[in-house]
Amino acid sequence: MTLEGDWFIEQAPEADMALGLKLRGKLADERSPYQHIEIYETESFGRLMVIDGCVMLTARDNFVYHEMMAHVSLFTHPDPRRVVIIGGGDCGTLKEVLKHPGVEHVLQVEIDEAVTRLAAEYFPELCESNDDPRAEFYFGDGIRWINDAEPGSVDVIIVDSTDPVGPAEGLFAEPFYRACRRALGERGIFVQQSESPLLHTRILKQVHAGLRAAGFADTAWAGFPQATYPSGWWSATLAGADVKDFRETAAAAKTFPTRYYTAGVHRGALAMPAFVEEALAN
Amino acid sequence: MTLEGDWFIEQAPEADMALGLKLRGKLADERSPYQHIEIYETESFGRLMVIDGCVMLTARDNFVYHEMMAHVSLFTHPDPRRVVIIGGGDCGTLKEVLKHPGVEHVLQVEIDEAVTRLAAEYFPELCESNDDPRAEFYFGDGIRWINDAEPGSVDVIIVDSTDPVGPAEGLFAEPFYRACRRALGERGIFVQQSESPLLHTRILKQVHAGLRAAGFADTAWAGFPQATYPSGWWSATLAGADVKDFRETAAAAKTFPTRYYTAGVHRGALAMPAFVEEALAN
Repeated sequence: MTLEGDWFIEQAPEADMALGLKLRGKLADERSPYQHIEIYETESFGRLMVIDGCVMLTARDNFVYHEMMAHVSLFTHPDPRRVVIIGGGDCGTLKEVLKHPGVEHVLQVEIDEAVTRLAAEYFPELCESNDDPRAEFYFGDGIRWINDAEPGSVDVIIVDSTDPVGPAEGLFAEPFYRACRRALGERGIFVQQSESPLLHTRILKQVHAGLRAAGFADTAWAGFPQATYPSGWWSATLAGADVKDFRETAAAAKTFPTRYYTAGVHRGALAMPAFVEEALAN
Repeated sequence: MTLEGDWFIEQAPEADMALGLKLRGKLADERSPYQHIEIYETESFGRLMVIDGCVMLTARDNFVYHEMMAHVSLFTHPDPRRVVIIGGGDCGTLKEVLKHPGVEHVLQVEIDEAVTRLAAEYFPELCESNDDPRAEFYFGDGIRWINDAEPGSVDVIIVDSTDPVGPAEGLFAEPFYRACRRALGERGIFVQQSESPLLHTRILKQVHAGLRAAGFADTAWAGFPQATYPSGWWSATLAGADVKDFRETAAAAKTFPTRYYTAGVHRGALAMPAFVEEALAN
């Protein structure tokens, strides 16, 4: 069977699975020193950003991912003030982090300025807090930045990266985790997007094992739906001294709006499906 | 872009979205009096059943849906003994229901015997409990069966149907809900697959409103990932006297294996994302 008209198709070769989104047209096509970035207008998912052939985000469903990456980690930390985002060039996670009134400083370390520039142009709704005086942008290597960071100088590190191939590979490795732990000190919270539980169970295991090996006392999973990522099901992995509990009362009483995240959703996301529990126990 | 090789593609026209699964070949193709049923062998999702062009199930990911349809409703009822499944012809839900030792009788009312016959042939793992003496099969109209049922004669009704178009349309309507309420009596629990929260928020609202209008005192949502259904995110809707609580201790102490369902997953599934909460409140 073929699709009539103009479609963006992402193939997940590891699962012999594909996602299609019907297009109205292409808005931008840029080859940066790091990757190939395309912006499309879709029929029903609003604008679409694609990097090296993979969906980064659509206007319609990115809220789930960005809210989960930001609020799960920030409500896990007792008092998050200094946040570092590694990657996150589209600024969607940054926007959510800045909703927390207690946050004093957020540094976004994105290797590719082209991603942020194109996001500002084509996803202005994600970049509306970029002028917040608490936000700082540094375009450079996240691994090097974390290696050079002062020990205990960061409260929350959010790794909002592409898949663990190419430029992001080093972000899924023990040396990086060890450097993060050093930068975070004893109370800090680490969170990383950790792929599809259904398709990438092996990666999920590696992330948890790597974080434990790097010295984090506790790890946790947070699952969530993500319609335009392979299998429609995604995960974040948390690490810290105790990441299975969070400031539930504060989350329930939060004064800023969200579309996906609630305190109940946070609690629910921590519950592991039986097969994930089993995979991570071994 | 096009996909090389042989692919099954399901288009969700309401979302201008498509799912592709790479195929090894076709195993069966049958036109029953009700619908067009196809069975494929896929590359990575095992066998695939398609009805009227829509994915019904794959061998790889059906466990999530079937476990959620069966165990969420059965652990919500205080003492489920008599269960009726409307639809469910592939027998995956039936198999999960029969895992509950307290269940005395399960009647499966499927309109199309071809679905069950093909499931027995191509998905034997879903049909391995079909010979259980507690299981009864009736091939006929679910709406008529419920209309004729003795009041208060059923503990749990599970509506495991296709989308609310064609043969299943009447299963999403108030007269059917009213008849279910009558068959269930005061303590009975109703559950129905209620489509994608992201793509079909309107249907979700209609289901909840219809169940309330039909006299159910309480409704609840249970969300779960379902990789091969449109948007990869699906929902069940519960109705009864009090469906936001369940036998959590019994669920945590269950003696049968599951791959997705746990007591924690059940609790988590009841938490509504903010936009669903808002949609159902209006």
